[in-house]
Amino acid sequence: MSVNSPLPIASDLKPVNGLRLGHAEAGIKRPGRKDVLVIELPAGSSVAGVFTKNRFCAAPVQICREHLAATNKAGLEVRALVVNTGNANAGTGEPGYQNAIKTCDELAKLMGLKREQVLPFSTGVILEPLPVEKVVAAMPQAISRLEADNWFNAAESIMTTDTQPKAASKQVQINGQTITLTGISKGAGMIHPNMATMLGYVGTDAKVSQALLQQLTTEAADLSFNAITIDGDTSTNDSFIVMATGASGVEIPSSGSAFHAFRQALIEISQQLAQMIVRDGEGATKFITIQIDGGKTVAECKQVAEAIAHSPLVKTAFFASDPNLGRILAAIGYAGIADLDVSGVQLWLDDVWVAKNGGRHPDYKEEDGQRVMKKAEIKVKADLGRGAATQTVWTCDLSHEYVSINADYRS
Amino acid sequence: MSVNSPLPIASDLKPVNGLRLGHAEAGIKRPGRKDVLVIELPAGSSVAGVFTKNRFCAAPVQICREHLAATNKAGLEVRALVVNTGNANAGTGEPGYQNAIKTCDELAKLMGLKREQVLPFSTGVILEPLPVEKVVAAMPQAISRLEADNWFNAAESIMTTDTQPKAASKQVQINGQTITLTGISKGAGMIHPNMATMLGYVGTDAKVSQALLQQLTTEAADLSFNAITIDGDTSTNDSFIVMATGASGVEIPSSGSAFHAFRQALIEISQQLAQMIVRDGEGATKFITIQIDGGKTVAECKQVAEAIAHSPLVKTAFFASDPNLGRILAAIGYAGIADLDVSGVQLWLDDVWVAKNGGRHPDYKEEDGQRVMKKAEIKVKADLGRGAATQTVWTCDLSHEYVSINADYRS
Repeated sequence: MSVNSPLPIASDLKPVNGLRLGHAEAGIKRPGRKDVLVIELPAGSSVAGVFTKNRFCAAPVQICREHLAATNKAGLEVRALVVNTGNANAGTGEPGYQNAIKTCDELAKLMGLKREQVLPFSTGVILEPLPVEKVVAAMPQAISRLEADNWFNAAESIMTTDTQPKAASKQVQINGQTITLTGISKGAGMIHPNMATMLGYVGTDAKVSQALLQQLTTEAADLSFNAITIDGDTSTNDSFIVMATGASGVEIPSSGSAFHAFRQALIEISQQLAQMIVRDGEGATKFITIQIDGGKTVAECKQVAEAIAHSPLVKTAFFASDPNLGRILAAIGYAGIADLDVSGVQLWLDDVWVAKNGGRHPDYKEEDGQRVMKKAEIKVKADLGRGAATQTVWTCDLSHEYVSINADYRS
Repeated sequence: MSVNSPLPIASDLKPVNGLRLGHAEAGIKRPGRKDVLVIELPAGSSVAGVFTKNRFCAAPVQICREHLAATNKAGLEVRALVVNTGNANAGTGEPGYQNAIKTCDELAKLMGLKREQVLPFSTGVILEPLPVEKVVAAMPQAISRLEADNWFNAAESIMTTDTQPKAASKQVQINGQTITLTGISKGAGMIHPNMATMLGYVGTDAKVSQALLQQLTTEAADLSFNAITIDGDTSTNDSFIVMATGASGVEIPSSGSAFHAFRQALIEISQQLAQMIVRDGEGATKFITIQIDGGKTVAECKQVAEAIAHSPLVKTAFFASDPNLGRILAAIGYAGIADLDVSGVQLWLDDVWVAKNGGRHPDYKEEDGQRVMKKAEIKVKADLGRGAATQTVWTCDLSHEYVSINADYRS
């Protein structure tokens, strides 16, 4: 089930000058399924990443961090990414680490690189050993298929319980030249049963220094992948990577109009890819935007938005199309802002003003709330009335189907 | 549905010397249902309370706090409690406050008390005006039924979506005399749809100073009502009240063996009443005990226990009897202990050691995990390996039935 998420069309996905992608069927979990992806980057590229904060981070996440640091320190460049599905290589201890290293070593050998120039990614079952030989055996096939125009297959090859591939392209004019951004993502629950992980990859032909790219990647992640939630669980493998090949020759400065145009484009494509994950959330029947205004800080706005987004009571009310406003107010109340003056809180469902100064709006009629709740896309807006900060979070409802998917997945 | 929760037997519920309880059918939501409870306390009683931290606390909670403070300050005693179900009087603004005051005033008039000597409680739909006339009209009936031996009816009269009444008694020998503790509780989801609230009332004939009683009540609440969670939502009306009539003449000192015997009895009956709420959790099919050892502080143990208890993925795995250990480890990992060294983490399911030093135990077999997961009562124990603190939390699974109850309640 997917809420109004367009299936990406292969021909709409613009190649990113300099990047090539190749997929393979390694048979990690099932034969015949695309489950390995190799991305090749040209010399002169810069790469930035944001990773899970889960203390049980997977071996590949640990190695990504190490390799990004090592290449930056040594003046080397990351030149290849390798992703496998079907196994997360998480909770696998030292053997898991060695398996991820072996993945890098083998791909490096095949592509004439150093180990540190390869970033590894895994998604799938936790706590089971990675069948590294299958990944390695599939690498020649993936390399033989490397093509610039292969984003759709790439999107398919990183799917787990996703019901559809997730990909998008965006082009923006900078200094009279066309800059392309193309990306793919995966993830349906924040963590799947054992199928952990949200992954996002964006490529661009802009030229961006590593430091600036890292700054923009962190910022874009905070406004997109870090602002979506399906069930509040944070995976051991979550990763978001931005790759800038520089092949367009257009250099992005650290301020000014070219900077802002690129920044905006990166945020937009990241949000698009992140929202596709929510729209394809496990069992999702509603796409909910939660905007919290009037906070003292962005952090407290996010805290309130997430309290609403994580409340099983709020989420089941959306599933039932029930304008159960008490549940939303209660979530605002327990979000953890100790000095919140509830008499300053306003609440809207789309255009309907439902709670005024902390209580039911005198003009609010249940049928107006009902009308909004029946829609497939709903905006919840609250104003905390205590500052100028704002934050938006996207989530979905909690349905019978969610319980079925997560209860029945391994049984 | 209730997980192994014994239906209380009226004759097992020991009267508490000095306390009388009377119920009424006020027709607040449905005619003929017990929905008002009055508890009368004798002169010389002390009363202590712990209330919701939700910033959207209900009018009666606000008044309880005010009246407890006012009576303590003025050297008065709380002499009556009045509880209604069917309406939470929450999110009702100034008119809601006035309605709760009116409830106190009317009961005070009937019983010859001052307003401040009455504590009001409400549970039910949020955001709708309290039909205060119905509550007031039912008071004479409740008063006419005041009896010491009326705890079973009292337990029934505070039920909302509870499938069974919750009550327990405990007797303990102190200085050669028998001290009685009897209590009732209600609550099935932390918040119901609109049927908010967890309520707990314990009476005892011990003599306890107000200051000591407040200290013990806070402590007992932290180890019981504050250590259970069904869906992580915190209601606007949650209240836990302990009443000590002193009628036994046995005074509890602030230390020593009599102190410890009373403290232990109060903690045990509070845990019993709190666990009955979890066992009767909305849609619950499993009763889960989560014990976190080896933390630096009790707070961080609780943080980890709650991350596990709140994870929809963990809860659906319990529902499915699926030994999906990765989900539990992932929840420990994202619980927010920034410097957690996962290589020091151990995990057990009942007697089965499943994760050793942060990874799968080499001897762990899935069939052992499966055997435990099939049980109706399961203990999850983790050792964080970084200190001596410990905390236990009780929760239930997340079933289809939970979604049905909360999605369909008002629709």
